[in-house]
Amino acid sequence: MADKASIPKGTRDFSPPEMARRNHIFDTIRRIFQVHGFLPIETPAMEKLSSLMGKYGDEGDKLLFKVLNSGDFKAKLSPDELSRTPSAKLGTLISEKGLRYDLTVPFARYVVQHRNEISFPFKRYQIQPVWRADRPQRGRYREFYQCDVDVIGSDSLLNELEMIQIIDEVFEVLGLKVEIRLNNRKVLAGIAEMMGAPERMTDITVALDKLEKIGRQGVIAELKQKGLSSESCDRLDPILHMEGSNLEKLEKLDALLKDSQIGKTGLAEIRQLLEYVEADPGSSGLEFDLTLARGLNYYTGSILEVKSTEVDMGSICGGGRYDDLTGIFGLEGVSGVGISFGADRIYDVLLQLDRFPRRAALDTTLLFVNFGEPEVKHIIPILGLLRRNGIAAELYPEQAKMKKQMAYADKRDIPFVALVGDQERSDGVVTLKEMKTGNQERLKPDELLKRLSSVKQHS
Amino acid sequence: MADKASIPKGTRDFSPPEMARRNHIFDTIRRIFQVHGFLPIETPAMEKLSSLMGKYGDEGDKLLFKVLNSGDFKAKLSPDELSRTPSAKLGTLISEKGLRYDLTVPFARYVVQHRNEISFPFKRYQIQPVWRADRPQRGRYREFYQCDVDVIGSDSLLNELEMIQIIDEVFEVLGLKVEIRLNNRKVLAGIAEMMGAPERMTDITVALDKLEKIGRQGVIAELKQKGLSSESCDRLDPILHMEGSNLEKLEKLDALLKDSQIGKTGLAEIRQLLEYVEADPGSSGLEFDLTLARGLNYYTGSILEVKSTEVDMGSICGGGRYDDLTGIFGLEGVSGVGISFGADRIYDVLLQLDRFPRRAALDTTLLFVNFGEPEVKHIIPILGLLRRNGIAAELYPEQAKMKKQMAYADKRDIPFVALVGDQERSDGVVTLKEMKTGNQERLKPDELLKRLSSVKQHS
Repeated sequence: MADKASIPKGTRDFSPPEMARRNHIFDTIRRIFQVHGFLPIETPAMEKLSSLMGKYGDEGDKLLFKVLNSGDFKAKLSPDELSRTPSAKLGTLISEKGLRYDLTVPFARYVVQHRNEISFPFKRYQIQPVWRADRPQRGRYREFYQCDVDVIGSDSLLNELEMIQIIDEVFEVLGLKVEIRLNNRKVLAGIAEMMGAPERMTDITVALDKLEKIGRQGVIAELKQKGLSSESCDRLDPILHMEGSNLEKLEKLDALLKDSQIGKTGLAEIRQLLEYVEADPGSSGLEFDLTLARGLNYYTGSILEVKSTEVDMGSICGGGRYDDLTGIFGLEGVSGVGISFGADRIYDVLLQLDRFPRRAALDTTLLFVNFGEPEVKHIIPILGLLRRNGIAAELYPEQAKMKKQMAYADKRDIPFVALVGDQERSDGVVTLKEMKTGNQERLKPDELLKRLSSVKQHS
Repeated sequence: MADKASIPKGTRDFSPPEMARRNHIFDTIRRIFQVHGFLPIETPAMEKLSSLMGKYGDEGDKLLFKVLNSGDFKAKLSPDELSRTPSAKLGTLISEKGLRYDLTVPFARYVVQHRNEISFPFKRYQIQPVWRADRPQRGRYREFYQCDVDVIGSDSLLNELEMIQIIDEVFEVLGLKVEIRLNNRKVLAGIAEMMGAPERMTDITVALDKLEKIGRQGVIAELKQKGLSSESCDRLDPILHMEGSNLEKLEKLDALLKDSQIGKTGLAEIRQLLEYVEADPGSSGLEFDLTLARGLNYYTGSILEVKSTEVDMGSICGGGRYDDLTGIFGLEGVSGVGISFGADRIYDVLLQLDRFPRRAALDTTLLFVNFGEPEVKHIIPILGLLRRNGIAAELYPEQAKMKKQMAYADKRDIPFVALVGDQERSDGVVTLKEMKTGNQERLKPDELLKRLSSVKQHS
C-alpha cells in the first residue's frame, strides 16, 4: 500500500534551484561573519524542554514543538492523571525534549555550559533551523533558518560598530539597498523617567513604536487610555515632534533628558557609536530613530533594525545589546550584543528584485554525450582530469537518443556539451559545443581543461 | 530561578574547533559531489509519521522520535482510550509528525512528490542531520549527520562507477587509505538458487557475512541450524573456499552459477563495472567480496562498502543499487544507486590519525591591539580594507591590559598582532608582530594587506 507523498504543513522541501539561491545568502553571510573573526558553533535540534519553557512567554510555550518521550511514556501516569490533566500540562509530563525555538536561548545555554572552555570576549555565529508551531501562512513557516552573530563578554561599543559593519557588508555584497535604524533602551528608559513614569517604559515604548502608523494624537490617546496622566503626555510632546539630523536629535534630547542619569548614558552611547561609524569609510550611515522599540524584553542598550528601501518587507535583520542573557541559566553579569539575519525574508526580497546570481559557482559546466562503450572508456580519464581541476562535468549515464541527452543538458542549463565519436577517439580529441552559440571546437584534453577553466573564471 | 545548563543525552554541542574539523569533512564531500554534477536538496526535519512508520522494521519504528501534536492533542481520545491504549500505539494517535530517521526515505518521498519537476536521471546530494532514539553509547548519537548522494532514474553501471570515483576522490582529498569492497545482490540470489534455496537468500547472506568472524564451519553450522539441508550446504562449500583475484573469483563463479539466470546477470554487472574502473587512471581499485551483505533489504544490485585500512572503525561509507525505492510512495520502476558517507566515523578516523588540517581557511589572521580612542579610529578603516580583501581580522573590543589582549590572541591561535600607538598613527603605519617568531615590521596599510595576503596563500 503506497503512502501519499507529502510533508507536514508549514514545512518545505528545497529543490536545487532554491538551494542555490539559499546558499548564496548563507555563504555570503557566513563569509562576512568569518572575516570579522566570528567562530561557528552548532547546538542540537532538541533541547531539554525545561531549557525552553518560560523563555518566550505564554504564547511561545504554546508554539514549542514537544518531542514525545521514547518507550512507555505514560507508565508513571495514572488513568486519572491521563484523562484529567489538560493537554498543555500533560504534554510536559510525557515530553522531556523540545525543538529549538530560536538560536538565542540555546546560545545562552551553550555559553553557561561551556563557560570554562570559552575565552571571552566570545565571538560566535550560528546558522541553523528553528521550529515554531505557528499557524502557517504566506512567508511564515514552521521550520525556518536563523543566522545569528553575537559577541558576549564585552561592554565596548566597538562591538555594536562591528554589527553595523557586518550589516553594511552583507547587504552590499547581496546588492540590496537598506536603511539601518538605531535606538537605545536606556534613552527609552530616560524618556519614561522624564515623563515621571519610569515603571511604564514598556507601554510608552509600545505606543512610540506606532507613531508612524497612528500619528501623534493616536500615541497620546493610547497612553491616556493606558492610564498615563495628561502631565506625563505633555512632557512626551516634544519627543513626538522630534525631527532633523541624528546630531540635532541628540542635542534636543540632551536638554530634555538632562535630569535622567540612564537617559544621559543612553545618549552618550549613541553619540559614541555614531562617531565610530563615521570613522568607517565603508559605512553607509544609520538613522537614530526614537520610535524603534523591538519587542524582545531582554535588550538593555543599543537596538538595531534593518529594512529594505526597495521592497516593503518588514525587518530583514535586527538585534541589540543584552546585559543578562545568560542569567536564566545561572551565569550573571555577562553583557553581549548580537544580530539575526532573516534568511527567508532576504530570499523573498532578492527574488522580487531579481538580484540572485544567474548560476551557482559549481553548476555543471560540461556534459559528455554518451555514444556507447568504446567512447565511454575514452571519456572516463578526461572526466577525471576535469574534475580534479575543479570543473564540474558529467557523462550522460545511458546511451540514449541524442535528442534526449541534449534535452537533459538544456533542462540542467549546462553551457557546454562534448561529443566523442570514432574520429575524435582515434585523433585523441573531443568536440566541444557551446550550447548558446552552437560553436564547435576540436580540443585535446589539456586544451579542453584550459578552455573550460577560463570560462569558469569569467562566469 | 536558574535552569541547569545541559542538553538531552545522546546529543552534542559543536564548539568552534569541532566545527572547523566537521566543515573540513563536509566541504570536501560537498565539493566532490558538485564536480560530479550532483545537485543539493534539503527536506524538512519533520516528516509525516505515516511516511516514516513501517519503513525501518519494528525496531526502527521504536527508534523514531515522535513530535507531539500542537494544541489539545488528547481532545478526541476518551479516558478509556488514553489509559488502555499501549504507549507505542497511543504515540501514533497523539503525534502526526516524526523526526527523519535517515535521508533515504525522505528522498524517496521527495522524488515521488516532485516527479513532475525533476528531469531524470536525477543526481542529488543531501547533507543533513537525522535522529534516532538509540541507546546513546560511545560513537553512537541520537542526532548525527548523513551525507547521501544518489542517481535515480538510470540503470547504467556508469552510475556505480561514479559512486566509486566519488569514494576514491573523497578519501584521497581527506588523506585516508581505504579499501572498497564490492558485491552484487544478484550474485547472492544466484548462490541461493544454486543451493536450491532461493527463498532463503537472506539467511544465506547473513551467514556469509560472518565468514571472517566464525569461519567456514561456523557458517555451515548456522545454516544447518536454520534448517538448510546438508546438500544445500555442500553446494556452498566451494564459495566458502573462494580465493584469488577478482577475475579468478569471477571465473570460478561463472562455472558455479551457470544455471542461475540472475546469478549470471550479477556476474556480468560486476565484470562490466570492473572494466569501467580499470579505464579510470584515478581509481585505486576495489575488491569483489562475496561475503559483503549490507543489511538493507531494498538493495537489488551492486552493493559497496568502504573501510579504513589504518584504523579499525567498521564501515565509513556504503551503499548500493535499489530498483524500487520509490515504490513505497506509489511510483514504481525507478531504479537508482546511492552511497552514504558516515561523517561521525570519518571524523573519528581523521582525529585518531591526526590528519585534520592545522588551521581552518578563515580563522582570524590578525588581531589589532586596542590602545584606546584615537588609535581605534585610525584602525577602523584599515580593518575594513583587510576584510574587504578576504583577510579575517579583529580589533580587541576593550582597552584591556596588553597581557590580557595577547592572551586572547594566543588562545584563539591568531598568528599576527598589530600594534598602533601614537608614533604609528602619525607615521600612517602599523607595527605587525608575528606571534611565533616575535619578528616585527612597520608597514603601511597596503603593504600590510599584501603581506597578509601572501601569508594566507601559503598557509
